[in-house]
Amino acid sequence: MGGSFTLGRIAEALGATLEGDPSRVVVAVAPLETAGPEHISFLANPRFLPAAAETRAGAVVVGRDVEGLSHALLRVDSPQAALVLLLRLFHPEAPTRPGVHTASVVDGTARVDASAAVGPGAVVEAGAVIGPRSRVGALSFVGPGVVIGADVVLHPRTVVYGGVAIGDRVIVHSGAVLGADGFGYAFDGRIHQKIPQVGGLRIEDDVEIGANTTIDRATLGNTVIGRGSKIDNLVQVGHNTEVGEDVILVSQVGISGSCRIGNRAILAGQVGVADHVVIGEGAVLTAQSGVPNTVPAGQVRSGTPSRPSLEMRRIWAAEAMLPDLVRKVRALEKRVRDLEGHAGE
Amino acid sequence: MGGSFTLGRIAEALGATLEGDPSRVVVAVAPLETAGPEHISFLANPRFLPAAAETRAGAVVVGRDVEGLSHALLRVDSPQAALVLLLRLFHPEAPTRPGVHTASVVDGTARVDASAAVGPGAVVEAGAVIGPRSRVGALSFVGPGVVIGADVVLHPRTVVYGGVAIGDRVIVHSGAVLGADGFGYAFDGRIHQKIPQVGGLRIEDDVEIGANTTIDRATLGNTVIGRGSKIDNLVQVGHNTEVGEDVILVSQVGISGSCRIGNRAILAGQVGVADHVVIGEGAVLTAQSGVPNTVPAGQVRSGTPSRPSLEMRRIWAAEAMLPDLVRKVRALEKRVRDLEGHAGE
Amino acid sequence: MGGSFTLGRIAEALGATLEGDPSRVVVAVAPLETAGPEHISFLANPRFLPAAAETRAGAVVVGRDVEGLSHALLRVDSPQAALVLLLRLFHPEAPTRPGVHTASVVDGTARVDASAAVGPGAVVEAGAVIGPRSRVGALSFVGPGVVIGADVVLHPRTVVYGGVAIGDRVIVHSGAVLGADGFGYAFDGRIHQKIPQVGGLRIEDDVEIGANTTIDRATLGNTVIGRGSKIDNLVQVGHNTEVGEDVILVSQVGISGSCRIGNRAILAGQVGVADHVVIGEGAVLTAQSGVPNTVPAGQVRSGTPSRPSLEMRRIWAAEAMLPDLVRKVRALEKRVRDLEGHAGE
Repeated sequence: MGGSFTLGRIAEALGATLEGDPSRVVVAVAPLETAGPEHISFLANPRFLPAAAETRAGAVVVGRDVEGLSHALLRVDSPQAALVLLLRLFHPEAPTRPGVHTASVVDGTARVDASAAVGPGAVVEAGAVIGPRSRVGALSFVGPGVVIGADVVLHPRTVVYGGVAIGDRVIVHSGAVLGADGFGYAFDGRIHQKIPQVGGLRIEDDVEIGANTTIDRATLGNTVIGRGSKIDNLVQVGHNTEVGEDVILVSQVGISGSCRIGNRAILAGQVGVADHVVIGEGAVLTAQSGVPNTVPAGQVRSGTPSRPSLEMRRIWAAEAMLPDLVRKVRALEKRVRDLEGHAGE
Repeated sequence: MGGSFTLGRIAEALGATLEGDPSRVVVAVAPLETAGPEHISFLANPRFLPAAAETRAGAVVVGRDVEGLSHALLRVDSPQAALVLLLRLFHPEAPTRPGVHTASVVDGTARVDASAAVGPGAVVEAGAVIGPRSRVGALSFVGPGVVIGADVVLHPRTVVYGGVAIGDRVIVHSGAVLGADGFGYAFDGRIHQKIPQVGGLRIEDDVEIGANTTIDRATLGNTVIGRGSKIDNLVQVGHNTEVGEDVILVSQVGISGSCRIGNRAILAGQVGVADHVVIGEGAVLTAQSGVPNTVPAGQVRSGTPSRPSLEMRRIWAAEAMLPDLVRKVRALEKRVRDLEGHAGE
Repeated sequence: MGGSFTLGRIAEALGATLEGDPSRVVVAVAPLETAGPEHISFLANPRFLPAAAETRAGAVVVGRDVEGLSHALLRVDSPQAALVLLLRLFHPEAPTRPGVHTASVVDGTARVDASAAVGPGAVVEAGAVIGPRSRVGALSFVGPGVVIGADVVLHPRTVVYGGVAIGDRVIVHSGAVLGADGFGYAFDGRIHQKIPQVGGLRIEDDVEIGANTTIDRATLGNTVIGRGSKIDNLVQVGHNTEVGEDVILVSQVGISGSCRIGNRAILAGQVGVADHVVIGEGAVLTAQSGVPNTVPAGQVRSGTPSRPSLEMRRIWAAEAMLPDLVRKVRALEKRVRDLEGHAGE
């Protein structure tokens, strides 16, 4: 896969300053550890500088100020951003091959754009709309009345329940389930009565949704995933929750119903958020945090129940001393009793 | 969607006492915040009273004793129970459209009731039985010998392994996997030998199972989900576990093998239960609890390892003082040493 | 299902010493609690000895040194290993019925071994290779260029993205997604730019993967699941992570990107591992542990952040005393102040 490029051509694509022979050719991108002279590699994180020093790569993409490397270098402002361009150069995305596969089942009232693709075994229900250049992967289900924008990729075997709205350039990975019923019951003293979940789900532009992630429809109104938010695998987003823009939800995060997650918030792996919780813009929840109530904008929190991270880290450090502390306090009590005995004499 | 109704008709359906004009018409149910004069809304939780006071809704369903609202009111004993009726009134469930889709694959020995439906792309294997008015959603898999009762809804793309038994009125959401092998191996000192998982899985009446939830078959005997239990998305139930009746398992709960979960127990989000654990009737585990051993009936527990919630909350509160406590004890030790020096003089 | 066997025949198959009538016939394997005289049962864990004493089973498989049972006994070195043989005897696995189902969609350039099977509704893309006796379950998706070895079982509705390599005797349960994009973005100060995920995923021989588990492809290079490792349901393995051999990952474990998990490590349910973490050979992480950094080989750890289990258990025990400790220290401070007052007199 991919082609081969001269370092000069790559430097141009990356907006990089080249220190090395512009006519040298590399055939692929490779990590520092496994790269050979025919590869180009990259140093995106300074902590891997030792690996960069030892790499056999023919060239390395590095930051402006990296020193101590004797390789051909392509210096850029942001090696991570350059990596995106580099990988796109070597691995250009194949354009959508338009067409509805004969082994799919598309309802006569669905409107599939002529430039869109529907894969084998996919089912597209009545009234659904598939926008320009969008792809419905093999074995996917697109429910009645679903509206999908342009340049969307539904990987094979995704499910979109009826009535869900998906914007442009959204990517959904296999196994994701968008728009299942919210988890709502009214206990009547005898059994749990199901509260009909008749609301919707709106996925805005440029969202990516991981494999086997579940995002529920609203009871009434809409569950919303805001523009540019990125959701990892096996994440749960409950009914009526509104996730802001450019939010990061790492794998196995669970967000209950009716939450508000502010723009650019980051929820690390396995974080749990209770219902009706508001998380402020740019807040960061470290892995496995449990969040029972409001998190102010910009705050970094850890632990269950979550606290400001610095505070939580001090507690974790002190915890190690806790068994010892119990003993010390017992000893102190005895010593103080003795002293009190003396003092009372 | 839905129709429009007079307040008089709605009051009748809800068994409500109407305070307002019975001939007034509303066209949809809406949340307090977004409702307009053409909508009916509801106040199911007293903490939203301020929102109710400000709603523009044409009418509000409220409890018998709510005060301070100047809207048309429909007073009921339980607003949450009334919400169920209200939503069913405006969003009546469509009856099953019987028939086996031509693009499905149904084995000749399977028995699909004439009133049942099998969607496009679904696969129903040998000897399976689909009961009256039940629906096998598009792209679902029903394994050999599966028995499904009446009025069951398998949403698109569910999987039911061979031999699983499902009762009446069960709802299974997309991506759920019922009856995969339990996680059982015998380490022979060299490798993990797979223990064949030859037991079954029984889902009793009125159970609902969320999207991408997994419930394993038993090694021998049966894994059981008891009548009326409601299971959220991405939940794991291990082999040979018996979940009682009317149990609530919130999203991302993980229950190991051979557990017993008592009737009406509630396990909040991300709770983990170790194997062979017994959880008593009506016990409540708050979110993210880790449960290594027996929980008595009716007890509310929190934390990992879980403790009675009041105790755990006191510990969490005291934790904040822990770093300070370490310093204080050090200071006390010094002061007591000094006093002891004096006392020894 | 299964046949019936004499105890003599069973003893032979298990390499057991029979204490009882070799001509006695049993018709099935059953747990101690539910077994009748026509069943054979087993005592794999000494803690169930009371149940064994009371079982009505016609025969019991037990360890060499178990005493106090009056049943017909089959004594073996390892009852757990014998259980594997016993279940295989009564429930022999059906051989693969070769053939490509007419309702599947197999690309003309894919190579399906003549002894392999492709189920109804399955999709096999261009250039994929399916090895001898392997089964692609109904409604499964096998992407372009996927290579699958011999005797592999893909249960219905699994997804294997393009380019993934699967060894021999691998079992993949329904809903698993192998090779979806890793979760990698470069924040450019404005939005999260997707880093193309162009690496692969290699599943080695004898691996088993649970239902709805997700294992991501690498950004570059390979994500690897080592030979003989067993992965439960709803597990997440991030991009570029290398899981060693004979590793156990219990349900809902989440492993971030670029981790190294040593051979024979055991990660219990809901454990979370941060990115770039190295876990040593044979290490054990107890349930719900959170692992932010290196775990030495062979160490048993618990808690978040994880510590050696003995230390963590001492902390958990001491936690219960923490609220009391706060009070005691306050009281001590007062008493010491009083003593200091006296001493200063």
